[in-house]
Amino acid sequence: MSDPAKPVRIAILGPGTVGSEVVRLLSEQGPDLAARVGAPLELAGVYVRDTSKDRGPHLPATVLTSDASALVAGADVVVELMGGIEPARTLILEAIAGGASVVTANKALLAAHGPELYEAADAANVDLYFEAAVAGAIPLVRPVRESLAGDHITRILGIVNGTTNYILDEMTRRGLSYDVALKQAQELGYAEADPTADVEGHDAAAKAAILASLAFHQRVALEDVYCEGISAITAEDVIAARETDQVIKLLAIAERTPEGVAVRVHPALVPSDHPLAGVHGAFNAVFIEAESAGGLMFYGQGAGGTPTASAVLGDLVSVARHRANGGKGPRESHYAVHDVLPIEAALTRYCVRMAVEDRPGVLSAVAEVFAQHGVGIEIVRQVPGQTHAGLILSTYAAPERDLRATVEGLRRSDAVAAVKSVLRIEGE
Amino acid sequence: MSDPAKPVRIAILGPGTVGSEVVRLLSEQGPDLAARVGAPLELAGVYVRDTSKDRGPHLPATVLTSDASALVAGADVVVELMGGIEPARTLILEAIAGGASVVTANKALLAAHGPELYEAADAANVDLYFEAAVAGAIPLVRPVRESLAGDHITRILGIVNGTTNYILDEMTRRGLSYDVALKQAQELGYAEADPTADVEGHDAAAKAAILASLAFHQRVALEDVYCEGISAITAEDVIAARETDQVIKLLAIAERTPEGVAVRVHPALVPSDHPLAGVHGAFNAVFIEAESAGGLMFYGQGAGGTPTASAVLGDLVSVARHRANGGKGPRESHYAVHDVLPIEAALTRYCVRMAVEDRPGVLSAVAEVFAQHGVGIEIVRQVPGQTHAGLILSTYAAPERDLRATVEGLRRSDAVAAVKSVLRIEGE
Ligand SMILES: NC(=O)c1ccc[n+]([C@@H]2O[C@H](COP(=O)([O-])OP(=O)(O)OC[C@H]3O[C@@H](n4cnc5c(N)ncnc54)[C@H](OP(=O)(O)O)[C@@H]3O)[C@@H](O)[C@H]2O)c1
Ligand SMILES: NC(=O)c1ccc[n+]([C@@H]2O[C@H](COP(=O)([O-])OP(=O)(O)OC[C@H]3O[C@@H](n4cnc5c(N)ncnc54)[C@H](OP(=O)(O)O)[C@@H]3O)[C@@H](O)[C@H]2O)c1
Repeated sequence: MSDPAKPVRIAILGPGTVGSEVVRLLSEQGPDLAARVGAPLELAGVYVRDTSKDRGPHLPATVLTSDASALVAGADVVVELMGGIEPARTLILEAIAGGASVVTANKALLAAHGPELYEAADAANVDLYFEAAVAGAIPLVRPVRESLAGDHITRILGIVNGTTNYILDEMTRRGLSYDVALKQAQELGYAEADPTADVEGHDAAAKAAILASLAFHQRVALEDVYCEGISAITAEDVIAARETDQVIKLLAIAERTPEGVAVRVHPALVPSDHPLAGVHGAFNAVFIEAESAGGLMFYGQGAGGTPTASAVLGDLVSVARHRANGGKGPRESHYAVHDVLPIEAALTRYCVRMAVEDRPGVLSAVAEVFAQHGVGIEIVRQVPGQTHAGLILSTYAAPERDLRATVEGLRRSDAVAAVKSVLRIEGE
Repeated sequence: MSDPAKPVRIAILGPGTVGSEVVRLLSEQGPDLAARVGAPLELAGVYVRDTSKDRGPHLPATVLTSDASALVAGADVVVELMGGIEPARTLILEAIAGGASVVTANKALLAAHGPELYEAADAANVDLYFEAAVAGAIPLVRPVRESLAGDHITRILGIVNGTTNYILDEMTRRGLSYDVALKQAQELGYAEADPTADVEGHDAAAKAAILASLAFHQRVALEDVYCEGISAITAEDVIAARETDQVIKLLAIAERTPEGVAVRVHPALVPSDHPLAGVHGAFNAVFIEAESAGGLMFYGQGAGGTPTASAVLGDLVSVARHRANGGKGPRESHYAVHDVLPIEAALTRYCVRMAVEDRPGVLSAVAEVFAQHGVGIEIVRQVPGQTHAGLILSTYAAPERDLRATVEGLRRSDAVAAVKSVLRIEGE
C-alpha cells in the first residue's frame, strides 16, 4: 500500500468530444473524486497532436504535450480517448509495459485487439477498464462481469447504437421513410455525414463482440459477429410491424445454446410489450437473460461527450483506488471454449412478407415450400391487395440456413410474385 | 496473496427461500465459480436451528450445524440469509471480528444497523457486500458505488417493491379495486398474509435508506425516510391518472438539492412515457438521474429465491476472489454531510382531486386558497358531476408544507365539498 496522500497521476490521450469532458470533470470534481479514491487525482498532462490550438479554459497550454511516450511513462493511469487502432494500441501497450493502469473507451480497438491488451495487462498486473466502450454511460461491464459472476447469462439483446435507434424510432413514431429519418438524424448530429459504421451495424458489432466475450467467459472476435444493417428497412416494414404489435429495432444479439455461442447484429421484430420496445430516440438499452436472475435491463445514454465521460471517470476512480489502496479489478475471464457458431447454424424465427398470386391453391403452394425445408409456420396473415394479395408468415424457430433456403424457394415459386421483406423475430 | 489452489470456505446462515437456492447453485456450479474466483469454493456448513428437519438433496445432514458461532469461526466468507435483526447482527459482527468477509441480503438489518456493520468491516479490513438487499437480482450496488463514482447522482426514483407494483399494475391494467388486487396478490404468493410491510411502504423505505446512503456518500437512516403506503389508492384514482396519461406507482425517492438530501416513499403519478411507467407486474426498476450520465434505468426481478440467489452469488464471487487473490471492495463512502431534509421541506408537485359546488365563482375561490399559500397552479381540469362538479388541479413544485397547508385550506373552504385525493407527481 502506498502513502494515501500521494497523488495518482493521470494522463489523458485525446481531448476530443469525450476527453475534453473528462478533463473538465476531473478539474471541477477534484475533492469529491479524491474522497472516493482515497488520494488526489493529478492531471499529469494531455496528449494532443497540435499544442498550439486553443482548446478552452480546461485545457491550457501548460497541460498539453505532443510527446505521448514521455507523458505515458510518467503516469499512474493512462486514459485513452483518441479512438482508432494506432497509435492508441501502441500507447496503451507502452503504458501497461511501464506499469500504468489503463482506461479506454475504444470499442474498435478492443474488438480488434482485445486479447493482446488483456494479456499484457494481466502480465503486468495492472488494470484495463473499458466501461465506456460498450454502451456509453450505461453501467454494463461491472454488472456483467461482477454482479452476474455467480450466474449464467444465456442471452443478450442490446440496442447499442443510438443513431439507428433514433432512425427506426422516427420511422415508427412519425411514419418517416428511412432516407428522411437518416437525413434528420444527420441534421441533429445523431448521425455522421458518412453514416456507414452506424447504419450497417459495424459499431453495434464491435460492442456485441465485447459484450459476448464478457458474458460467456470466452473470446469472441469481431469476425465472429454476423452483421446486417438497417438501410433496407422500409416504411412499409414498420407499418406491417405495428399491425402485429411489434416494433423494428437493430439488435446486437449474443446467445449461448447447447451447440455453442452465436453473436449477430441485425434488425429484428420485437413485441411491443418487451422492455426493449419502449426504448425511444437515441437511447440505448441492453436486455440480459440469465439462468437465475431472469430478465434484466440496463437503459441509458449510449453516447455523447458528457455521459460517456461519466463512465470513463467511474473506471478512473476504480483503477486509481487500486493504485492508492492496493487491489486490482477482475482479470479477463476466458476459460470457456464454446464453439462460436456461424450465422447459418443460429436458431431464429423469420417473418416473411410477400406478394402472391390471387388464386386458390397459393397458400398451399407457399406452405409446401416451408415444409420442404422443415420450417414450421406459426402464423399466417393474408392482406388484400390490388394486383397481388399480401401474405405475411411467421415461422417457428429454425436454423437460419433452412430459413434462407425457404426464402430462396419462395423466390422461385410460381405462386409468389415477390418476397417483399424478411425480418427476424426476437425477444419472445 | 494466498496459494490460489487453497479453497475459500463458505458458511451459509439460514437456508430459507434464498439460502437454499444459494446452496443449490454453489453445488451445481462449482467448476464455473472456481474459475471465476481463482480458487474452489468449499461449503463449510449451513446453520439451522433444527438439524433433524429434512431439507432436500442439496442440504444433507452432514452439512447442517446448529452451532453458528463455531461455523462462523471457521469460515472465510459468511453468507447471512436469515433476515431479521438478531441473531443476524451478532453473527455478522462475530464473523467480521474473526476476519471473515460477509455477504448479506438483509435490508432490515442494514437500514437499522448499517453504520455499525460497515465500521466493523472497515476496521477488520474485510468485505461486507449486500447487492441482494437493495433490489433482489438487479445489479445496483456496483453501478451506484463504482460505475457512477465519477458522477453526481441527483435523484433516484425506484420501484423497489414487487408486491405493491403488482397490485397497482393490476388496478391499472384490469381496473381492479385495491382490495381485490391485494387478495389476488396474496393468492398468487406475491403478497404475504400480513401485507403491512409491503403495502405501507416499510420494505421500500429500508431500500430507499440503503440506496440514498450509497448514492449521496453519507448515512441516511431509516428514521430519515418519510413513508406513505398504497392502501388509500382507489380505482377512481387510477382512472383519473389514466385520463391524464399518467400511472400510479409506489416510488422510493432520494433527491439531492442545494438544501440537502430528501428521502421518501409514497405513491406518485408518473407520466405514461416515463421508463418507469412500463414496469409491470412484480418487476422492479430503479431510475437514476446523474449530472453527467443523465437518466439511467436498471430493471429486473426484485425478489424470489433464485433471482435473489444470483445477486448473493455475484457478491460471493467478488469477496471470495479478494480472499484468494488479495484486494478488497470499496469501503463505505460517507464523507458527505448534506442535511437530511424533513418531508415538509421537500419540493414536490401535487395533483388534487376534489368535488366542488357547481356554481359560478368556485374556481376563483379554490384558486385563492392556492394563492394564499404561494402554490402555483399548472393545470386545471373540470369534470361534470351529479351533485357536485369534479375539479382536478396540478400544482407547480412547492414545499410540501405549503402544499399541505393548501389542502387543509381547501378542506375548510365552502366552495369545496370534498378533497377526494391528493397524489404527488414525479418523474417529469
Ligand atoms: N463520442 C461518443 O459519444 C463516444 C461514446 C462511446 C465511446 N466513444 C469512444 O471514445 C473515443 C473518443 O471518441 P470521441 O468522440 O471523443 O472522439 P473525437 O471527438 O474524435 O476525439 C478524439 C481525440 O483524439 C485525438 N486524436 C485522434 N487521433 C489521434 C492521433 N493519431 N494522434 C493524436 N491524437 C489523436 C483528437 O485530436 P485532434 O483534436 O487533434 O484531432 C481528439 O482530441 C473513441 O474510441 C470512441 O469510440 C465515444
Ligand atoms: N425472498 C426474497 O425474495 C428476498 C429478496 C431480497 C432479499 N431477501 C432477504 O434475504 C433474507 C432471507 O430471506 P428469505 O426469503 O430466504 O427468508 P426465509 O425463507 O424466511 O428463510 C430464512 C432462513 O433463516 C432461518 N432463520 C431465521 N431466523 C433464524 C434464527 N433466529 N436462527 C436460526 N435460523 C433462522 C430460517 O430457518 P427455519 O427454516 O428453521 O425457520 C430459514 O432457513 C432476508 O434478509 C430477506 O430480507 C429476500
